[in-house]
Amino acid sequence: MSVLVVGSVAFDAIETPFGKTDKIVGGAASYICLASSFFTKPVRLVSVVGGDFPHAFVQTLNSRGVDTQGLEVRPNEKSFFWSGRYHNDLNSRDTLDTQLNVLATFDPQIPAAYQESEFLMLGNLVPDIQRNVIRQMKRRPRLVVMDTMNFWMDTALDSVKKTIAEVDVLTINDEEARQLSGEYSLVKAARAILAMGPRYLIIKKGEHGALLFHENQVFFAPALPLEEVFDPTGAGDTFAGGFLGYLAATKDLSFQNMKNAVIYGSTLASFCVEKFGTERLESLTIEEVRSRYKQFLDLVQIDLQLV
Amino acid sequence: MSVLVVGSVAFDAIETPFGKTDKIVGGAASYICLASSFFTKPVRLVSVVGGDFPHAFVQTLNSRGVDTQGLEVRPNEKSFFWSGRYHNDLNSRDTLDTQLNVLATFDPQIPAAYQESEFLMLGNLVPDIQRNVIRQMKRRPRLVVMDTMNFWMDTALDSVKKTIAEVDVLTINDEEARQLSGEYSLVKAARAILAMGPRYLIIKKGEHGALLFHENQVFFAPALPLEEVFDPTGAGDTFAGGFLGYLAATKDLSFQNMKNAVIYGSTLASFCVEKFGTERLESLTIEEVRSRYKQFLDLVQIDLQLV
Repeated sequence: MSVLVVGSVAFDAIETPFGKTDKIVGGAASYICLASSFFTKPVRLVSVVGGDFPHAFVQTLNSRGVDTQGLEVRPNEKSFFWSGRYHNDLNSRDTLDTQLNVLATFDPQIPAAYQESEFLMLGNLVPDIQRNVIRQMKRRPRLVVMDTMNFWMDTALDSVKKTIAEVDVLTINDEEARQLSGEYSLVKAARAILAMGPRYLIIKKGEHGALLFHENQVFFAPALPLEEVFDPTGAGDTFAGGFLGYLAATKDLSFQNMKNAVIYGSTLASFCVEKFGTERLESLTIEEVRSRYKQFLDLVQIDLQLV
Repeated sequence: MSVLVVGSVAFDAIETPFGKTDKIVGGAASYICLASSFFTKPVRLVSVVGGDFPHAFVQTLNSRGVDTQGLEVRPNEKSFFWSGRYHNDLNSRDTLDTQLNVLATFDPQIPAAYQESEFLMLGNLVPDIQRNVIRQMKRRPRLVVMDTMNFWMDTALDSVKKTIAEVDVLTINDEEARQLSGEYSLVKAARAILAMGPRYLIIKKGEHGALLFHENQVFFAPALPLEEVFDPTGAGDTFAGGFLGYLAATKDLSFQNMKNAVIYGSTLASFCVEKFGTERLESLTIEEVRSRYKQFLDLVQIDLQLV
């Protein structure tokens, strides 16, 4: 089924304890599109870049079945740029530089051919813009997934809540869930956030896995214990892309299948962090995805043994 | 099968964001014995208390099948006392007061009737003393489990390593695993620690679950997402007690069964944190244990769905 992804396509410069990069391709929508494309076609991209953005990456997306007609290119402007340095634990980072550039005036126009997409992924963007994307859809997508971040909760909380009320699935991390709900317990936080509108909530806990909440049900997806996390950039977006792509491919929105989607999202994210930026996703094969998915199941596999 | 527990029986005074206690019963061996007693008999306790220790708690242990002949009582001395205050996240705490009292000269003598116990749990103690307990066993127990903490790594690392080399299972938390191994990645840390001697390593991650490592295998046990963690004191000891008690009851030391033991340990620990001190464990029923064990399995249950 068709997936529409709206979000940033950009440059990142990353420092981790293991090394640093010059400007490399990043942006939420880059990771989401790459991850979704493992499972479903077409994946449609709406974003904006400047004249400095490498055509090679657009070709990479195209070669994986990503439709980039919705990628606006502004030849005389520069692409969004973010630079950050991760701390030793890789769980926290400092932003060194943010240059909005083209993103400062980004007002996504959804091409007519995209307006009936069946799955919609709203990558992290200004929440007003996220709602404006929903408005442009000719009919309600089967599933609308939204990512956001603490920055918008700090600066535009009312708008964040309005957008949350209009989506089916919200994906945020544990700190954001606590901030949004005012509850420390993630169980209480989830209940408060589900009451804001979305039917599903995914709380991403990085190296500690992810929780899927729906009504009174909860599912826990572990993170694979890895030898080395090389660069966490894009892991959350890769997770979301894998989650949505798997759902679009299987067309099954039951809670049971959502669990599998969470595991596939975690699987792709576990690869993403192995190298800088999108590098590992670009070399990844579906056989590797299958094999690691089974590792995820083995990690928690147990036979019921009552006392 | 018989379980021998050597460790502290003591008083704690605890402050959490939810309240504070006066002196209540605590100590590693108290939690371990209570937890083990859900699964197996006899559980044998070797510890020391002062004349101030309440007989009622000893009766509670006895009523659950815990043999307290090895509990030395020194009428003219005072019991070990620890006081601490948990931070808002409940993952970290400050020690407010430590009074070693009877523990300062504790030199456990294992009664002859205990020296052929089949399972041995070395609660957190001076590592020299832990080794001395192993020496006193008439024959090698089927399984020796050791707990320790960062304090001993800071002050007696060589001795910690000597004891680790003599045990079958080491249980420590994630920060301790990192300190002991010098590796940040828990996968690398586990490999380094297993090379120090133990066949199994359990890394406890508190609200993030626990990892069981054995040779090249790894198993992940989630923590149950709880509404409220009221008091984390004793959770790790309760985990260890449940783990060991289940193994002693099932007499099966395969990796498969160790996984179940980890889940049962997690199950008991999830109850422990619901109230202050040992209160919840004392009111707990085996039916509640069974029911929550199933919740743990449901939390990660998934049907294989290949793409």
